[in-house]
Parts: sequence; structure tokens; C-alpha cells
Amino acid sequence: MTKHTIEFLPDNITVTVDKGENLLSAAAEAGVYIHAYCGGDGVCGKCKVVVDEGEVRSSKSNLKQDDWDKGFRLACLSTVESDLKVTIPEMTTKSGKALKRKPKTTRTISAKALDTLIGTWEVDPPVSKIYLELDPPTMEDNISDMQRVMRGIKLVMPGDSREPSYDHPELIKHLPRVLRESDWKITLLLLRGKYKGETFRIIDVEAGDTTKRLYGLAVDIGTTTCSGVLVDLNTGKILADASGYNGQISYGEDVISRIIYAGRPGGLKALQDKVVETINTIIEDICRKMIISPSDISYIMAAGNTVMSHLLLGLDPKYIRESPYVPSVSQFPLTKAAGLGIHAHPSMRLFLYPCIASYVGGDIVAGVHACQMAKSEEVSLFIDIGTNGEIVVGNKDWMVCAACSAGPAFEGGGIQYGMRASNGAIENFHIHPETFDPMIVTIGRIKPSGICGSGLISIVSELLEAGVIDQQGKFKRTLDIPRIREGRDGWEYVLAWGQDSLIGEDIIISEVDLDNLMRAKGAMYAGYQTLLESVGLGFDDLDRVIMAGNFGAYIDLERAICIGLLPDVDREKFYYLGNASMLGCQISLSDVDRFRERVEARQLMTNMELAENPEFMQHYMASLFLPHTDMSLFPSVARKLEEVD
Amino acid sequence: MTKHTIEFLPDNITVTVDKGENLLSAAAEAGVYIHAYCGGDGVCGKCKVVVDEGEVRSSKSNLKQDDWDKGFRLACLSTVESDLKVTIPEMTTKSGKALKRKPKTTRTISAKALDTLIGTWEVDPPVSKIYLELDPPTMEDNISDMQRVMRGIKLVMPGDSREPSYDHPELIKHLPRVLRESDWKITLLLLRGKYKGETFRIIDVEAGDTTKRLYGLAVDIGTTTCSGVLVDLNTGKILADASGYNGQISYGEDVISRIIYAGRPGGLKALQDKVVETINTIIEDICRKMIISPSDISYIMAAGNTVMSHLLLGLDPKYIRESPYVPSVSQFPLTKAAGLGIHAHPSMRLFLYPCIASYVGGDIVAGVHACQMAKSEEVSLFIDIGTNGEIVVGNKDWMVCAACSAGPAFEGGGIQYGMRASNGAIENFHIHPETFDPMIVTIGRIKPSGICGSGLISIVSELLEAGVIDQQGKFKRTLDIPRIREGRDGWEYVLAWGQDSLIGEDIIISEVDLDNLMRAKGAMYAGYQTLLESVGLGFDDLDRVIMAGNFGAYIDLERAICIGLLPDVDREKFYYLGNASMLGCQISLSDVDRFRERVEARQLMTNMELAENPEFMQHYMASLFLPHTDMSLFPSVARKLEEVD
Repeated sequence: MTKHTIEFLPDNITVTVDKGENLLSAAAEAGVYIHAYCGGDGVCGKCKVVVDEGEVRSSKSNLKQDDWDKGFRLACLSTVESDLKVTIPEMTTKSGKALKRKPKTTRTISAKALDTLIGTWEVDPPVSKIYLELDPPTMEDNISDMQRVMRGIKLVMPGDSREPSYDHPELIKHLPRVLRESDWKITLLLLRGKYKGETFRIIDVEAGDTTKRLYGLAVDIGTTTCSGVLVDLNTGKILADASGYNGQISYGEDVISRIIYAGRPGGLKALQDKVVETINTIIEDICRKMIISPSDISYIMAAGNTVMSHLLLGLDPKYIRESPYVPSVSQFPLTKAAGLGIHAHPSMRLFLYPCIASYVGGDIVAGVHACQMAKSEEVSLFIDIGTNGEIVVGNKDWMVCAACSAGPAFEGGGIQYGMRASNGAIENFHIHPETFDPMIVTIGRIKPSGICGSGLISIVSELLEAGVIDQQGKFKRTLDIPRIREGRDGWEYVLAWGQDSLIGEDIIISEVDLDNLMRAKGAMYAGYQTLLESVGLGFDDLDRVIMAGNFGAYIDLERAICIGLLPDVDREKFYYLGNASMLGCQISLSDVDRFRERVEARQLMTNMELAENPEFMQHYMASLFLPHTDMSLFPSVARKLEEVD
Repeated sequence: MTKHTIEFLPDNITVTVDKGENLLSAAAEAGVYIHAYCGGDGVCGKCKVVVDEGEVRSSKSNLKQDDWDKGFRLACLSTVESDLKVTIPEMTTKSGKALKRKPKTTRTISAKALDTLIGTWEVDPPVSKIYLELDPPTMEDNISDMQRVMRGIKLVMPGDSREPSYDHPELIKHLPRVLRESDWKITLLLLRGKYKGETFRIIDVEAGDTTKRLYGLAVDIGTTTCSGVLVDLNTGKILADASGYNGQISYGEDVISRIIYAGRPGGLKALQDKVVETINTIIEDICRKMIISPSDISYIMAAGNTVMSHLLLGLDPKYIRESPYVPSVSQFPLTKAAGLGIHAHPSMRLFLYPCIASYVGGDIVAGVHACQMAKSEEVSLFIDIGTNGEIVVGNKDWMVCAACSAGPAFEGGGIQYGMRASNGAIENFHIHPETFDPMIVTIGRIKPSGICGSGLISIVSELLEAGVIDQQGKFKRTLDIPRIREGRDGWEYVLAWGQDSLIGEDIIISEVDLDNLMRAKGAMYAGYQTLLESVGLGFDDLDRVIMAGNFGAYIDLERAICIGLLPDVDREKFYYLGNASMLGCQISLSDVDRFRERVEARQLMTNMELAENPEFMQHYMASLFLPHTDMSLFPSVARKLEEVD
């Protein structure tokens, strides 16, 4: 992706973004305040800038011809096409000067450092193909078809003394026909043994030489979203991807409601069918894009949380919900995908990452596996933030993990105007330090309709830093501006007036919302503390903080630290891994040695139950503050807040 | 079984038989001629004898009260109840003296020697059960159910470091329920690894302690008959058996017609269904007898010829019939019996003995395995006589095998009055050396309706020794008795007149029949010769001749040698193994070490194709004589025939 540098004048603030980035978003990322109410829809017409140097692609929309001719452009309707110099006129910034300079986000750092974290891998997948040209049988040599194949294998792979096993009845049923139709020239699909040195298994036979056609599918089975990535197993290259909502959503938003639904008559089957349908749709999408057949896919590596994994395999998740929270199985057996109803070759195997406990699932193991925590001397804190936040601390010698029920605030739950990260969600927010007017950036650059998780973090940190709320999450009653008012549920701040919102009503954030956010971030932070203390460490002992999950990729690091969601440690220690679960699946698909290393990762991980843990409860209570009651844990935030006061 | 000795007077010929044996049969076995036309039905009233000492149980039937009072009894209606002295009156023997003394048959020898042949075995079956009392989960110990089971296994079997594998989805789906319903006290059914030292596999879980209930089923899948034997795998004892015609018979008598039928639309499926039905009926019979459920059977070990094995697994046997006679597979994979439609626990495995070639099948491998040919220094000739005769020669260092298409003469085919060995079939025959009158013993002691294989051998050898036919199988035209006549198909001998036969017509044996018999026995003998010569040996090098198959058990050794079906070697070298295939299955069920030895047996065996082999053809042509054109191969027969001349 081509990168371009933008210098915002008059304050000479520089940011590097991808070519094609929206200019308003670029300003938001740079921490440059631009007046913007409508979320980037071009409606309010406030975000006028002048492009001094370089090229943008703009549309005019409501901008007056007069302004257009003077060189004004709407930032929200402009995309970056080259390096730029952009002047923000006085009317746009309102105060006439750019606001505080924010440090660079870690987004750029992580992109650089990701390789060192996840390492390299070979193209040596757990399935492979060999092409054989066999001698046709004669009266002098009339061993069985299968023996002939075995002999052929031995000729090209003389090392193995034991005969490979093979799939039945599928393979033997059509072997004789394939052999004769192909004039004894066949390609075998081989599955490697579970352990190094174990003999492989023949899982398919095809006529002719099909060795060039070898694909694997990595699948991330999320409670909300499922996604798939097609990997060419001859090159290790990603060929296509697809994703979609997990069809189980119609039976409940979170894992608990799915477990409850599974307990109803036919519920388990219905849930299994739904996720299988979802995977089938992903396979169809990808196959359509690549013009291949589902039966060309030779392996599926998947990961999901413990409940998703149980439901995919048709296992009753009942006991996961009941104390003492016991899953049926933690190491899922290698399964024939077709047996689950997945549109796949009958012999195709589906591997599902093992889980650690009822609420630390295969997605976390896949992520920990992807970033090689179990191979590093460095002590890492691995975080996946969500309704069920998962935390892993450790290195190559030990690992502890836990889940903490953070609540759904980061996914829009329990927040009056909370919503998922979809079009219209406020994802970025700045506040004018004097007028307390908002700069709102929404997903899709349309009028705002609600607040998603990353928006919530932005809003709360901005309100805190601007002194609009105090560290208890209460609005300063003394601020006399129309946007701060007493509403139905107590004090609130109006993010967008009804006229500027997509839903036609005021979009606000209330003290109730702030309480919910504090509980969510407090649970995560208390989780880090409890795990670290359980092994006698503190935050200073951390060498790395690795953030997994799609949500992690959208979090602004400084703001997340500011509200106490992330620990206040050296910013260079932070890494964004993105969809770590998917990454683990992709690596496992491509490299059987890396795949086998998953076992060590899983074996190291020891689960702690936080639910009834007294230390956790104590830490949690102390965390219900912005960022924390113990400000010595947040020195950089303490300095920043002092500046404000 | 209690044995009793019978002394036949006036010639002091002694024979030992089981208590309850029919007196006419006992005489036939002893080679004592008693006038008998009706097959043992009590109708002709000819077989009158006087019991001088001891006790018989007799019924009077057509015997006159006068004769009964004089102490006469009909041999065919008398059973042996104690040691006996029996006088055969002049009118019964016709000539007033008993005929030649026959040597003992090998039946008694084999019974004694069988143990040394098949050896001993432990009760250490390939499936076993362990009982576990697990600690229920707590918040401090909430590993998954499956991990808890694995931990429990490790406690009682600390030696194994690798975790066992397990069946899925069956096992994991009901494990949580079973654990909780049984208060965490369970029995696991374990399947041992394919190789020694390999980890086992958990294939079932049951509530409570069920270790005492562990059964295996040995199944012999014959083209005509299938049989099953239930073995208690805790004791190694046989508990019950059952058998029945292979339901495929309705689609053809022999393997070739079954292969042809399999090629018709739906034919393969129909044949598979039929044999599965047959096995299901056997399982039902046995379960009814033992008051157990089919799901209590934990393992099935089966053996059948190559075509039967293919059909059971639903594999198209098409190429077995077409030159160069290639089976689809020779080592059959361990299969889940329920997957084939067998009424069995879903996890129950069915093992099928591997085959060597298209016409040397798993039944032969099982037999060779049972008699430990592959472990002995001694050179053995292993024979299974049938439409497809199978021959194996070898010892622990080498083995060659072959099938020869003997034709169906021994199973009643190609013989005008040939029939299967069922009620009414002439199974034993003596001829009066002067009157050439027959002594006929039928199966079931009813009027004769035809000739079975063992009867055929008796008839031909008696006719030869009595000089009624010559060594070319032609009737002596000079004998002027009504029973020898020119019939529709040339010269023939009347075994039973219409009035004495069940079918109301004369039962005869013709020169055409004799030709067919010579071809059948000639093919077998030529097979022995060709195999022996291929390894540079002759008949003198043989240490043992092992006869397998149900037919083998009914063959009279001397007579079979007399017609050239068996080689003329020291009689002490002969062994009857009976249903060797079933025996192999039973041994494999009971002792995993013996089971694993099957691999060596199979690996040693090298198949020779006789069909287009010029040496075989030459030997075959030379064998179309009674017993053989080269009489030096049959010294004992030569001596006997000289006596006659």
C-alpha cells in the first residue's frame, strides 16, 4: 500500500496514511481537530480545509461554488492521492490553532514489528500431494490396486518404512476406477501424522497430475463474525478471503444466550446448522472468486472460542455455563468437515484449535501460537478485548491465562447509543478544548447513528482530558454549555444534535454509560493485575503487550491507556496483532512444523478462574476510576491530567 | 465327549467312536461293509447286526418282531451307548466275512495333534476395559471432561506418556452425560494400537463398572455359509455360536456369479446388504442365546475370501474376475461395523483378514495364521479344497500360495446327482468286493437324494479299489451286474435304485461325473506339484499336510489319497484344522500378540498365478488319472491296486 505524508498547517503536525485515506480521518488520526458534526457525510459543511500542495480527490456536495473556487475542500469528502500540505483555516478549527499534538499511534509501530513477533514460516503444509506414474498390472504382477499405490509411494518416498494409512471407505471405493481412467497416473493427497515421524495418511486420489492445485482454508469462527482466508498451499500465498455474520446471531448475540438456546429441543442442532451454513457461504464466496470447487480445498484450520467450537462440533455446551464451568472437551479431534455438513470433499479434515477452559478458547490459543509467546524469553501480556476479555501472561517457560467478563460495553452493549462497529458508528472523536464542540468521524463517513467501542474510548478519554468529566466519570456540573445537560438518566453530553444525526434524535453519552465503560475496562485491568501478581510480577516486568482481536486494531493506544483499559507502559512495547486467531490458522495451514508447535503453547497455558477470585475483586473495585484509583500505575496519564487542571 | 470302542465280529475290526454315534456310520468308518441301500433310513431293513456285548439304543421300525427277539438290530437305527461287541451276520455282509481292514482315519490323529499346530494363546484381547472413579470437577479443578478422563487413565496406566486418541463424535457427545449420571464412575472400552507400543484408542464409555461384560465375535464369511462364534474376552471361552447360509446365494452360487451380479445396477449394494443381513441374523441368534445386546459385542474379527471381503465392504469386485485378476485392496482397513449396516455399537470395529490375491483370500490367511506356519521350521502344505482350491506351501522363512480352479465337483456341481452336504446326501460308501452291492450312508440317515463331496470321494475310491472302474475312470465293460449299465451319458453305476431313493429315481454315477471329479482333484494335485517345484521341493520334503475348510473334516484320508486328491505321504503328517478361518479369528480376538503375528504370515505369502502357467498345465494333464499317471507318486495306492488285480 502506498503511503503518503500529510502536513497539517498552521501547526505543522505530520501524519503518514495510506493512499486513498479520507482526509478527515487522517486529521483525526493525527490528533488535529477539525470542526465536524455530521460524521463525515458532507452535510454539515463545516470541515473546510485548503490543500496547499499535493493532490486530493474531492467532491463538492454542499460546498458553495464560491468556496470551491477559493480552494476550500471538505475534508470529509476528500481522499489523499499524494503527499499533502493542508491548511486548516481559522473558521474550521474555531480557535484558529490546532490542538495538542498526539503521539503517533502504535498502528504504524506494530506494522513494522509484526514480523519479529510472528516470525517466519515455511511452505510445508500438513497436507501435500504426490504424483505417481504406476506400472499397469500384469499376470506376473497382479498385486491389489492399493498395494500398487503403496509400492509407488515407497519408490518416490523411500524413507518411510511403515505403510501409510488411508481413508475408507471413500478412498478404496473409487481408487480402482481412478487408476484405470487415468491410465495409472494419479495424484495422492496426503495428510501428515499428528506427531513428527508418524506415517502419513492417504486421504484422496485424483486422476492425472493435480499437484499444482492445493488449497487450504483458514477460518475464524467468531461469536458475531466468521471469516475465511484461502491459502495456496504450494506457495503459502493468500488468494482470497470472505466473511459474514455468524448465522447463530439470530438465536442470541452472545455465547450465554447461545448456550441457553442449545438447551432447547433441537436448539443444539439448529445452532450447529447455522454456523455450518455460515462457513459454507464463506467457502462458496471464496470458490466463486477463485473459480475453484469446494472439493479443491484440502484442509480447513479453524479457531473459535470454546462455545463456538462446541457448537460447531455439535457438542452440548451446557456445562460451560454452570459452575465450575467445565467444557466437554478441550482438545478437539481432527474431524471430517463433510461429516459436520460443510460443503467439502468427504475426506477433507477440519482442525479446530484446542481450548484451555470454558472461556479461554481456541481463538486465544491460535493467537498465542501465532505470536510465538511460547518460544520467547520475553514476558508478554496477550489481550483480546471483548464481552469476554481474554488475557494471557507468560513466556516460553510458563503461561497463565484467564477470561474476565468485561461486559458488552466495547461491543456497544449497555451503552444507550452503543452499536456495533458498522456504518454510522462514531469511531473517532475529538473535542475542542475551549468550546467543547465535537469532531465526529463515523464509519462509512455518514451521519452518526451511535457509538462503537473505539468511539467510546475516544469520547471518554477526550472528555476526561478536556476536563468535561472527572476521574469518577461524572460531568462537571459547572460547565455551562448546551451540550452538557441533565437528561433522563442523569447528566450527559450531546455528541450530535438530532438534526445532525442519522436517527433524527440527539446522540448522547451519559454517566450511566460512563459507569458501564468503567466496569468493562476495570475488569480487564484487574485481570492483568491478578494474573501478573499470581506469578509475582508487575507491569514493569512486561516486555510486550500484544493486542489481538479486530477491536484491538481500532483502539487508539494513548486514549485506551488514558481511560485505564491498557496499562501505562512504554508505548514501544505495544503490538497490534489484528485477527490473531486467523493468523494462527494461516500459519498452521502453511507450515506443519509451526502447526505442531501449537501443542507447546497449549500445554504451557494454565487457566485461572477470576469469577470468584478475591484478589481480582479487590483490583476490580480499585479500577472503577479513570484511569485508576492508584495513579502511580498511570504516570503518563497523571502528567497529562495535571496539564489540564 | 465320551468315547466307546466297538469290535466288529467275525473279523475283530475295532473302531473308537463318540458315544451316541450311529452304528452304521461307525461300521462305515471302520471300513466294515454292511449291506445298506437306503442311506440309513431303516427302510430297506438290510443292515441287521447282533449286539453281543454292551448297550445300544435301537428303534424297531420295519424289523420283524421275530428278528428283534433273536437279538437282531438295524445298525442304521442304533446308537452307541457303551463299548460294544457287534457280530455282522452272514446275510448282512453277504459274503459272510468282513472286508478289508482300513487304517484309522486321521480324524483321531488330528484331534490329538491340533494343539501343537495352533499353539496356545493368552487372554489378552485387542480390546479391553478399564474402570475409573474420577474426582468430580471443582472451581479449582475445572479441566474439560475429556481431560479429566485422560488424567484418570494416566493414574491407572502410568506407563503411557502419549494421550490415547478417541472416537468422535460419538464418544465426546455423550461423555458429559455419562460422567454426571454415573457420579464420575465410568468404564472405558479401549482399542489397542495397530503396532506394539502404539497408544490405544478410547472407543466407548459406559456408566459404572462394566468390565465383566466384554465380548468379541469371530465371523467366517463363506461364499455359501457364514458362521459366528461369541468369545468372552475376559476368559477366552467360547460362549455361543450360530451360522446360516450367506444371503447372497439368491444372487448366485459361486463368487463369479456374485461378481457378475455386482456389476448390475444396484447389484453391489444388494450383495453387501445380503451379507450384512446374514451377519445380523447370526448376531441376533447369538445375542438371544446369551441374553446380551448386540452393543455388548466389542469387536468383530472376520475372514472371507477376496470376493466376500470386497462385497462386505461394498467394494466393486469387478477387476478380480478380469485378467490380470487384481483386487482393489488386499489389506482391508479396520472398519466401524455399524457403518456397514451391522447391528452393533457405533464404535465397534470390524477387522477383516487381509487377502493375498484375487483368489487367495483372508480365510486362507486366517487359517495359515491360526496354524502358525509362519512360525515353524517345518515345511507345511496347507490345503483348502473347494470350487476354488487354495494351496499354501512354506515355513517361517518363505511361503508360496496359489488358487486353482478345481471346479465345483466337491460341492456337488458338475456331477449329475451331486448336491451340497445336506440331508439325504450320500456321505459314505462301501462296495461289496464280490457282489458290487453298495453300502450307503447318508447325512441325516434318510433315503439318498444325491452325492456330496465326501461321498463322491468314497464312491470313486471304492469303485477303483473294487476294480469296477479303471485308472482312467472308465467302467469295466466286462462286469455283468445290473448296477453297471450304459445310460444316457455313457456308462454308469447305480448307487440306489429309484425305490430306495428319496427322489424316486435311480441315483447313478457316470463316466462324465468321473471325468469331472478327475479334473477337480487333478487341478489340486497339479497345484501342489507346481508350488513345490517352484521352490525346488518335492512331496518328500513336506513335514505336514494341513487340511482346512469344513470339507476337509469329512474327507476320508485313505480314499482321498487313493483317487489322487491328496499326496501319498506318511499319514502321520496329516492334520485336519477344520474351519481354520474361524479359528484364526477366534485366536486373534483373544490374544493381541497372536493377532499381531498375522502380519508376518501375510507378508511371507507370495502368490503364484496358475491359470496360464505352463508347468501347472503339464502337471494337470498328468493328473487326469486315478490316482495319477505317475504311479511312483502314489506307492501305497499302487500296492493296494495291485492286490485288487
